[in-house]
Amino acid sequence: MKITKITAGGILTPKGFTGSAGVAGIKNPEATRYDVGLIYSEKECNAAGTFTTNQVKAAPVTLSEKNISNGKLKAIIANSGNANACTGKTGEDDALAIIGELAKELKITSNDVAICSTGVIGIPLPLDRVLHPISSMVSSLSKENGTQIAHSIMTSDTCHKEIAIKCISKEGLEFSIGSCAKGAGMICPNMATMLSFITTDLNISSALLKTALKEAVDASFNCITIDGDMSTNDTVLILANGAVENTLIDDINSPLYQDFLIALKQVTLEMAQALVQDGERVTKFVTVNVQNALTKRDAMLVAQAVANSSLVKASWNGEDPNWGRVIHAVGYSSATLDPSKITISYNDTIACKNGLQADVDMEKLREIVTADSYTITIDLSLGNVEHKVYSSDLSPEYVDFNRSEYAYWKQAKLDGLA
Amino acid sequence: MKITKITAGGILTPKGFTGSAGVAGIKNPEATRYDVGLIYSEKECNAAGTFTTNQVKAAPVTLSEKNISNGKLKAIIANSGNANACTGKTGEDDALAIIGELAKELKITSNDVAICSTGVIGIPLPLDRVLHPISSMVSSLSKENGTQIAHSIMTSDTCHKEIAIKCISKEGLEFSIGSCAKGAGMICPNMATMLSFITTDLNISSALLKTALKEAVDASFNCITIDGDMSTNDTVLILANGAVENTLIDDINSPLYQDFLIALKQVTLEMAQALVQDGERVTKFVTVNVQNALTKRDAMLVAQAVANSSLVKASWNGEDPNWGRVIHAVGYSSATLDPSKITISYNDTIACKNGLQADVDMEKLREIVTADSYTITIDLSLGNVEHKVYSSDLSPEYVDFNRSEYAYWKQAKLDGLA
Repeated sequence: MKITKITAGGILTPKGFTGSAGVAGIKNPEATRYDVGLIYSEKECNAAGTFTTNQVKAAPVTLSEKNISNGKLKAIIANSGNANACTGKTGEDDALAIIGELAKELKITSNDVAICSTGVIGIPLPLDRVLHPISSMVSSLSKENGTQIAHSIMTSDTCHKEIAIKCISKEGLEFSIGSCAKGAGMICPNMATMLSFITTDLNISSALLKTALKEAVDASFNCITIDGDMSTNDTVLILANGAVENTLIDDINSPLYQDFLIALKQVTLEMAQALVQDGERVTKFVTVNVQNALTKRDAMLVAQAVANSSLVKASWNGEDPNWGRVIHAVGYSSATLDPSKITISYNDTIACKNGLQADVDMEKLREIVTADSYTITIDLSLGNVEHKVYSSDLSPEYVDFNRSEYAYWKQAKLDGLA
Repeated sequence: MKITKITAGGILTPKGFTGSAGVAGIKNPEATRYDVGLIYSEKECNAAGTFTTNQVKAAPVTLSEKNISNGKLKAIIANSGNANACTGKTGEDDALAIIGELAKELKITSNDVAICSTGVIGIPLPLDRVLHPISSMVSSLSKENGTQIAHSIMTSDTCHKEIAIKCISKEGLEFSIGSCAKGAGMICPNMATMLSFITTDLNISSALLKTALKEAVDASFNCITIDGDMSTNDTVLILANGAVENTLIDDINSPLYQDFLIALKQVTLEMAQALVQDGERVTKFVTVNVQNALTKRDAMLVAQAVANSSLVKASWNGEDPNWGRVIHAVGYSSATLDPSKITISYNDTIACKNGLQADVDMEKLREIVTADSYTITIDLSLGNVEHKVYSSDLSPEYVDFNRSEYAYWKQAKLDGLA
């Protein structure tokens, strides 16, 4: 298969998708930035999604799970600035009102719409403000608005994230996959305050789409961590409208499915890595690569313990090649271990050999951890299973940035919203 | 039972215990601070200990576990400045050499000595420096040196921690319990880089001492968290020399055992709370109190998820009464929950009622979280089980403080130690 990355473009690159973004002023009525995004396919799409495992689920998550349960969607509407989480019956009614208004304007049924929200928790949506731009968003649907949609879902992200790839399968079929995503804080394995939307113009069954999405998410969005937290709103949605008119892919062994899976995994991995790289006040992108574990579970436990340790992450921020902190985090994971067999490398340089300080050039180690991006490989020497987690440092600036949303809450209270 | 706290004193308050501290210059040969401590009872003690569950155990931990396995000890030697962890055979030999030298000077057997080390990981101990003060420490054994011992085990602690209480049992027996401890970073449920030594002059069987210590540690040192990390060296040791000459306590139902347990729990809880209050760059002491959970495990999972969330802890630092972050952490714990039944209070003020923003005076909430210390109560309304975790905020200064030990490592390398 031949894959071409497209620099301009994104979620609306696949055939048959249009979209738009609107300004609702959800967090601040005076603001002029896009905070509502719409993705639409006139042709009904097969659809699949993965949702937060947080037991406190926001109203839009519950509603989207319901609407996608038949494997069909035509539209996604998303807003930033307010998560519509912990908002009870009001939140449910608000989410229903938004998809109702959109369905009316699009002349489709509410069941064909998924809805996503991201932002502050516990304050009801300013519903009128969210509803306001919907009519003009529907009338301005176009293929040109992909980047605007990527902008509309940003919260504390410092840059928008989008990607599109064109693929030519082994059998010569041309198809595309597009995506946009947002992340920033609360990023942890099993997702976080992150949203990612994916479109493709392939014709593929809902069941296989679900299988492919799960495999791709497990190897990408479920392998990243910024601060070890996990949000109430995480959602990944994929829409396949079949606009390239291939014969329906419904066999997991078909070459076209395998090509699609490879392409989808590339898209989700690149988006997931982009989320980590743009994590709140992040200065380092560190791949924690656990090798030769006895089981996949062991490899995951070790990688997550290291990638989520505040002390390890602080040392990354300090450009300190501190394998002592790494091995102590390995040790408190509940994985099967033999400490005397553990070898820890920074890129290709061994810092700890069989649990002991290796004979190593400290300056060389230091140079590696001074780069923006590097890999720590933890070889457990017990089996042959590997797992990677993509992580970031913990900076004093991250903590400072997340110290308080109180001013916003107080204003919401004064505005009668909270 | 009558309990009197003694302000001056500590680990050497109970009858028959002496001790001393020495200057070895372990981290810095030029330094003049105490970095080795010795606790001794001429009369053989019944003894018990709890040790780190980290699979990467330091050499002194393994050796102490072995020496205490018969329930008998006469002495504890401890050093700060180097954890003697991840030091392999060299580390084992060094620990053996230290207890051998001490046993020779005290004219006891090596098996009667426990050894503890705390400090940097992965660099061998400077053995000669550690051995050097032992002879003079033995010749200066006295009851007056308790506070010096508490000082000798400090690492990044900003103050020493010690306590002593005198008890008069219901039956009129006078006995004492003394303790010193160190903590600072890496504090998490199931212990951390923390050491705590406890002495008593009661006569109690090794088996009951072990039972009592486990119960007391589970309700104290295992209920604290500073940064969610857990070290390779955690140790709590208790010595009971029987100097008050009571009839051996060997019945868990005896009134004297029950009195002892109450007193021991007070000592361990006060020391555990002191560790949190002196956590690295900590400004807030927050009790997370989970109530009405279905099971103890559920209550613990919820309390730990909240108490270890970086985003929650950052909001404590920012004096932000952010119940949204609290409930999102509750939600990602794997406890049995009904989000629509969760009520969250700051002290006695309800911020979230049945999963929704309560009608609350924001200024009143703000005033509560501005104090140095407060309690967040999470009522799950599902059962009747409670669990408390004592936690602290996450400050930008904590991260800054923990960014790098590289300069120390590099020097150790230059000195031929690493």
